[in-house]
Amino acid sequence: MFVYADNAATTKMRPSALEAYVKTAETFFGNPSSLHTAGQRAQEELTRCREEVAAVLGCTPREILFTSGGSESDNQAILSAARAGARKGKKKIVSTAIEHHAVLHTLKKLEGEGFNVVLLPVGTDGIVRTEDAEREIDENCCLVSVMLANNEIGTIQPVEEIGAICRGRGVPFHTDAVQAVGHLPVDVKKLNCDYLALSAHKFGGPRGVGALYVRTGAPIYNLIEGGAQERGKRAGTENLPAIAAMTAALREAVSDLPAYMERVSALRDELIANLKRIPHCALNGDPVKRLCGNVSFCFEGIEGESLLLLLDEKGICASSGSACTSGSLDPSHVLLAIGRVHDVAHGSLRLTLGEDTTEEEIRYLSEEVPKVVEYLRNMSPVWRDLKEGKRQYIL
Amino acid sequence: MFVYADNAATTKMRPSALEAYVKTAETFFGNPSSLHTAGQRAQEELTRCREEVAAVLGCTPREILFTSGGSESDNQAILSAARAGARKGKKKIVSTAIEHHAVLHTLKKLEGEGFNVVLLPVGTDGIVRTEDAEREIDENCCLVSVMLANNEIGTIQPVEEIGAICRGRGVPFHTDAVQAVGHLPVDVKKLNCDYLALSAHKFGGPRGVGALYVRTGAPIYNLIEGGAQERGKRAGTENLPAIAAMTAALREAVSDLPAYMERVSALRDELIANLKRIPHCALNGDPVKRLCGNVSFCFEGIEGESLLLLLDEKGICASSGSACTSGSLDPSHVLLAIGRVHDVAHGSLRLTLGEDTTEEEIRYLSEEVPKVVEYLRNMSPVWRDLKEGKRQYIL
Repeated sequence: MFVYADNAATTKMRPSALEAYVKTAETFFGNPSSLHTAGQRAQEELTRCREEVAAVLGCTPREILFTSGGSESDNQAILSAARAGARKGKKKIVSTAIEHHAVLHTLKKLEGEGFNVVLLPVGTDGIVRTEDAEREIDENCCLVSVMLANNEIGTIQPVEEIGAICRGRGVPFHTDAVQAVGHLPVDVKKLNCDYLALSAHKFGGPRGVGALYVRTGAPIYNLIEGGAQERGKRAGTENLPAIAAMTAALREAVSDLPAYMERVSALRDELIANLKRIPHCALNGDPVKRLCGNVSFCFEGIEGESLLLLLDEKGICASSGSACTSGSLDPSHVLLAIGRVHDVAHGSLRLTLGEDTTEEEIRYLSEEVPKVVEYLRNMSPVWRDLKEGKRQYIL
Repeated sequence: MFVYADNAATTKMRPSALEAYVKTAETFFGNPSSLHTAGQRAQEELTRCREEVAAVLGCTPREILFTSGGSESDNQAILSAARAGARKGKKKIVSTAIEHHAVLHTLKKLEGEGFNVVLLPVGTDGIVRTEDAEREIDENCCLVSVMLANNEIGTIQPVEEIGAICRGRGVPFHTDAVQAVGHLPVDVKKLNCDYLALSAHKFGGPRGVGALYVRTGAPIYNLIEGGAQERGKRAGTENLPAIAAMTAALREAVSDLPAYMERVSALRDELIANLKRIPHCALNGDPVKRLCGNVSFCFEGIEGESLLLLLDEKGICASSGSACTSGSLDPSHVLLAIGRVHDVAHGSLRLTLGEDTTEEEIRYLSEEVPKVVEYLRNMSPVWRDLKEGKRQYIL
């Protein structure tokens, strides 16, 4: 059996999105900046896509910039607010310890330029406390950046509340919604954000395309200079086939979001309940305030990479944390942030369900994961020490 | 009849490239950074593409970074060299007056940060003089950036010679080869460059993908921070379907480049000869040292935008200059650089031929363009003044 349970890393492109890509590449092949009919037809199609994406997010078309993806969107939002802030002498940025590296590494770069970056902690439930945000957000801040849903443990953050604090104190607020869009309702007005980043390939759209919501009036500077595309704020010939495919994927993803969320979260809860029966394990992140498709566990006494390889042999595509950091031997910064010690953090498993996940696949995962965990523990000297009482169980 | 003569703005995707896109999206759907088989198969396909692109350019796979396109590649190369230069106190950059805005606007940004940018002039033939470069390139330079072929007038620059000067003086050298790759032989070793930017959609590949050659040892910093993709130098999930499609397009474009160049330049020369018969017109750029598909003219007494709209009514897709600057009322900086006065520069027409251009299309263009020029001149008060001797002809 083949089970793709790594939808947070990337989703398979929806057939409707792939069809839109091909149709657009063949039909609207002109450059949208060209004056001739082929160009103007492409321009109209681009406008139509922008209107549709804007309508889903609850903003105006002018507030949508199309980009090459989530990382670019995050980078541009953060650097724009920082640059505007620096001009006013405001160099404090508040974010969280569990952000994606597209945010954290950009903040690291800004630290090198003299910005004061404060990373809010999260509780053991993987959720930022609004009170902590309230305390740190002040008139010296040029930006607050809090992700809507975490990519590793799926926890949903109190973005609406933190956004309201920012709005009240006049501080620009960015949210990385890469894991959220298409998986839970996202309304920029409700979230009180000035910037919101999304990525198409996380909801069945193509790679290499995303969007950045920029509230009217929020500062925005180019990350990529050149032609006058995207109101002069993002140079480069518009990737219309990919934008049309993203729009098609988004349309399908949000067409019946409550039903999708209900169906997938039932599968998630079943899988969580089954895996919880494994001794000495722990669910990572809040069991309720989490993405409908996210299942993340730590298993004591085993090593996550071996777990992935053995599951792979059984046809199960899973992840230990984020795909973007695989190959790194450091334990996940997210798992450390929720209080897992290094050894335990190394024994992590992320299974991310999606649109296509079936009940049968959940049964297969529920059978195979415990077997593989047991197999690995039987070979593990750490597990032997734990069983023999030479080490203390943590979980 | 429908004639697409705007291939410098964007090309229609080659069927082989579109097929590669679809096949890759369906077959290699894993995230190349994932450890499981679906991810590793995607990683292998990514490696194969990188090897093939590197082989075409004459470099090693490690020297290829995949990006979202030509603009991003240009931005990253220039900012990297500038940042490395600033650390050594070298803040002089030499470029040319006819670069694409992806280069010029990035240099403008650097000027704002205290860099000294020197733009070399070009002759009336649209070509930079090697002697001018020789004089300006000195030990204070952190970067020289000269495009391989111009996007508006198609002139091919003495990049090999300027690259040799840079190499001899230890100055990093970037070339924007966006219009050149797939249209003339490009070998990074022969060009003596440290950076080279290319864009897939200029040779029948998809939008939203390109590459940056970075010579081993040349400084490179992230434009987009985040995950560890592209050896940590370009974050964001690798756009594998687009990369595979670009690779397929490149393979086809270079498979018989001499034959393509011979065939298309014969069509170009025929069209140039025919349009030259129009009174008071001038070919823009050197007639020989130009891209095989580029035909660029200025016609006295008419306005380029009206020309485009009337040609469009006859099914001809053309451009006045660069698609990236359409909508702007300023005359082309390239046409001004070759000495065209404002009025004449406004009467410009760019016809860019491609892979699919036929002999029949050339005949149609040769018949229709003169008719439209005459029609517009008959309505033009400027042309009446010229005919009546109240103004002097320039061309």
